[in-house]
Amino acid sequence: MSEQNSTTAYTTLKSRFQRLSALGGAQAVLHWDRATMMPEGGAQARAEQQATLSLIAHETLTAPETSDLLASARESADALAAWDRANLAEMGRIHRHATATPTDLVSKLSHQKSKTEMIWRKARAANDFAALAPELTNLLGLVREQAAAKASAFGLSLYDALLDGYDPDRRSVDIDRLFTELEGFLPDLLKKVMEKQAGAPKPLPIKGPFSIPLQEKLGRDVMAVLGFDFAHGRLDVSHHPFTGGVPDDSRITTRYDENDFMESLMAVVHETGHSLYERGLPPEWRNQPVGRSRGMTIHESQSLLFEMQAGRSTEFISFLAPRLKKLFNGEGEAWSPENILRHYRKVGPSLIRVSADELTYPLHVILRYRLEKAMITGDLVPADLPAAWAEGMNTLLGIVPPNDADGCMQDIHWPSGSFGYFPTYTLGALTAAQLFAAARGTAGNALAQGDFTPLISWVRERVHGVGSSKTPDEIILAATGSPLGTQAFKRHIESRYLS
Amino acid sequence: MSEQNSTTAYTTLKSRFQRLSALGGAQAVLHWDRATMMPEGGAQARAEQQATLSLIAHETLTAPETSDLLASARESADALAAWDRANLAEMGRIHRHATATPTDLVSKLSHQKSKTEMIWRKARAANDFAALAPELTNLLGLVREQAAAKASAFGLSLYDALLDGYDPDRRSVDIDRLFTELEGFLPDLLKKVMEKQAGAPKPLPIKGPFSIPLQEKLGRDVMAVLGFDFAHGRLDVSHHPFTGGVPDDSRITTRYDENDFMESLMAVVHETGHSLYERGLPPEWRNQPVGRSRGMTIHESQSLLFEMQAGRSTEFISFLAPRLKKLFNGEGEAWSPENILRHYRKVGPSLIRVSADELTYPLHVILRYRLEKAMITGDLVPADLPAAWAEGMNTLLGIVPPNDADGCMQDIHWPSGSFGYFPTYTLGALTAAQLFAAARGTAGNALAQGDFTPLISWVRERVHGVGSSKTPDEIILAATGSPLGTQAFKRHIESRYLS
Repeated sequence: MSEQNSTTAYTTLKSRFQRLSALGGAQAVLHWDRATMMPEGGAQARAEQQATLSLIAHETLTAPETSDLLASARESADALAAWDRANLAEMGRIHRHATATPTDLVSKLSHQKSKTEMIWRKARAANDFAALAPELTNLLGLVREQAAAKASAFGLSLYDALLDGYDPDRRSVDIDRLFTELEGFLPDLLKKVMEKQAGAPKPLPIKGPFSIPLQEKLGRDVMAVLGFDFAHGRLDVSHHPFTGGVPDDSRITTRYDENDFMESLMAVVHETGHSLYERGLPPEWRNQPVGRSRGMTIHESQSLLFEMQAGRSTEFISFLAPRLKKLFNGEGEAWSPENILRHYRKVGPSLIRVSADELTYPLHVILRYRLEKAMITGDLVPADLPAAWAEGMNTLLGIVPPNDADGCMQDIHWPSGSFGYFPTYTLGALTAAQLFAAARGTAGNALAQGDFTPLISWVRERVHGVGSSKTPDEIILAATGSPLGTQAFKRHIESRYLS
Repeated sequence: MSEQNSTTAYTTLKSRFQRLSALGGAQAVLHWDRATMMPEGGAQARAEQQATLSLIAHETLTAPETSDLLASARESADALAAWDRANLAEMGRIHRHATATPTDLVSKLSHQKSKTEMIWRKARAANDFAALAPELTNLLGLVREQAAAKASAFGLSLYDALLDGYDPDRRSVDIDRLFTELEGFLPDLLKKVMEKQAGAPKPLPIKGPFSIPLQEKLGRDVMAVLGFDFAHGRLDVSHHPFTGGVPDDSRITTRYDENDFMESLMAVVHETGHSLYERGLPPEWRNQPVGRSRGMTIHESQSLLFEMQAGRSTEFISFLAPRLKKLFNGEGEAWSPENILRHYRKVGPSLIRVSADELTYPLHVILRYRLEKAMITGDLVPADLPAAWAEGMNTLLGIVPPNDADGCMQDIHWPSGSFGYFPTYTLGALTAAQLFAAARGTAGNALAQGDFTPLISWVRERVHGVGSSKTPDEIILAATGSPLGTQAFKRHIESRYLS
């Protein structure tokens, strides 16, 4: 085929992927609405809407012409500019994932995800795992079908085939290595930190209640300090905090507890990190694959860079503490930066992943990683999850949940069909530590003045603006000078908790 | 083609229209979100999403197979049950409207509607008609193209071709007749009522402020009394009250004024009427054309049945008044049912359609009907709207708006591309009067106990549950025993305001 035809093929692909981007944006709105606004009785209609859009996107992607266009465009990929070449490669990756899944499975998965997620909401509230188990079993069956189809198409293991959809080019052999390293030093570090904290002054209680409107105001104020643009986003409430929407309409959520503002506030900081990444993606590639975020490890590194690295830094807390004291009419030493840091740096085994400290968090993830790998390979069935969960918690953290709501039902991931997602939380934490170690010299001091501009500029250039033009590991290497490892994270923990 | 193939064709059509229904539902969520939740910076991405879904729906409807399937299904329509036959007929109607509009025009219209509507929001706030005019001109150009295409396909006038999309089988010759009758008696009635009201006790002021949270509570309480099911719907805030969503997730909006709870409350009653209609559509036909609402005249008749007929009845206000008094901690005669009725029945010329009384409202509609007909035929260009508006207001109502924000920019309809919609407000008012006259014997007294069950049962059987299985005029004739006319409305006005 002539070079001209190849260029035309690429141009046609671009409009096809622009349509897919708009469909994805519509899906994002439906998803956000379901978690924040939708009345319960709308679930069935919503499931139908989401399944239909999934199906149409899938049909568009997998239409025979798409293969032909890709083949034709590749013939003269060399003539394309670098970003266009990367865009074409990313089109191919998305196409590969889509064509590996049969169309009727896409539709079944979408329906079953919606159904299982709605049932999970009720079952979790009622601490009724038995109500969830049959639907989770059905969903897992479909997810395993999808894994098998992708594994055979990509020449990967079942689990790696799913993992690749969340973190491109990541393989479980790498995760096993990194997680083994973590397991090598985390228990010892945890022991040392807990001993040190046991001998140090106890955090003074910071007493509520803290009204929800005031907490919401605080969230918005802190979002503004972090650079969130409210003309292009919102803050709302959902059961589980998340970032949704599209880059130019990026919506974060949190949840409130009248007796504790600290967790909700850090959820806001965390989600703002995700949102800034979305907003910072290359604007000229908004509707193309190469303009999208580069998988969940990089995404999580951005939220943790804000929440765990910058957000809990001595510098930022020294800026924040007097403002908290003023807003909540606080009095005394409890509101000092030192005391607030003591709260935000308390370490110890706990039941709930999303409120775990950064030292024990990887252990929560390692548990889930092992369980979900076992479910995907077929070595563990959902009915046996509660027992396996209790055993794993006991081994890794030395505690056992008193019920399934605070155990294997605490997370939305499995009921919404996300298997292969969990490890990216800890890979993201490792990445965040490595990025902050590299950026701190440039961006650290300004945080004490509540100035996030240097940090944002640093990541915008090296991470956000890169979009999907590089692999996650290439992004990490280029930004920090080293491949992804555990050492920066280890040094961060030692320096923050033991020095 | 054999009967079996025809049946298969109809079954295939049903799944195709089920997909269209899900696409329509997704569109409804995007539309609702845009009006209630979306930050301004999301407008461009949303326009792209909405245009893409419109385009996909249009492509699905107008695919050559759809024509073939319709032709094939029609061959043995006689073998179908009555509802299926009506469903097939309605599929044909929708298909006719869709195929009459070229695909590229659908996409252009969707983009231009979004754009014009966003600009209208700003231009109206800034009272800057000059900012709106060029975009409105572009939009009108596209709407006229669409009208021309449909007019030629249906053998109708330009305006009737658009009207048919809002009120099936309605023709402007009928509207002209009904509106001429209204013009024949309304000015005289208005004069008499105003004289009577001038001689009667002035309404005692009901003094605020009325906090917005309390007004919202009132709205929700009244919605519950009216039979609104919050497991299947929501109440929110938007610039212009509307009912959105889908039958099983029906979302209404209102807007609040701290100094006046009465307008917001009646907006809630009005939108609840719309919502109950959606909820009451035949559940077994949820995702099929015959299960949809039967055009905007019938829709508006349901909102006005609640707002203007039942909602402002002596019976219901006698139920409501003591509850209002208690909720707002009111004191004295101002909170008596008689005084509240005086407020809700005040009559006189005013600038804003949505807050006009039921006697002058048709005059607002007649103005818009004439202007939009003139714009569609090409006898009036948007640039001349302000002058034509002022002249028409002066002729019909004897007042002239001091600015365009309270004049020709007050309504969202034209900026969002709805031409042919306005007359359905008044046709709906005539229908509501006719329906309430027929239902009052059965359902009127219960309203004094806040019991809407008999009224809802009455309309659910005769209107809601009919879906689109009959034409609007057939529904009206069957429910009331008479064709649509102006006499029930006239008697209602005389009885309420002059007896």
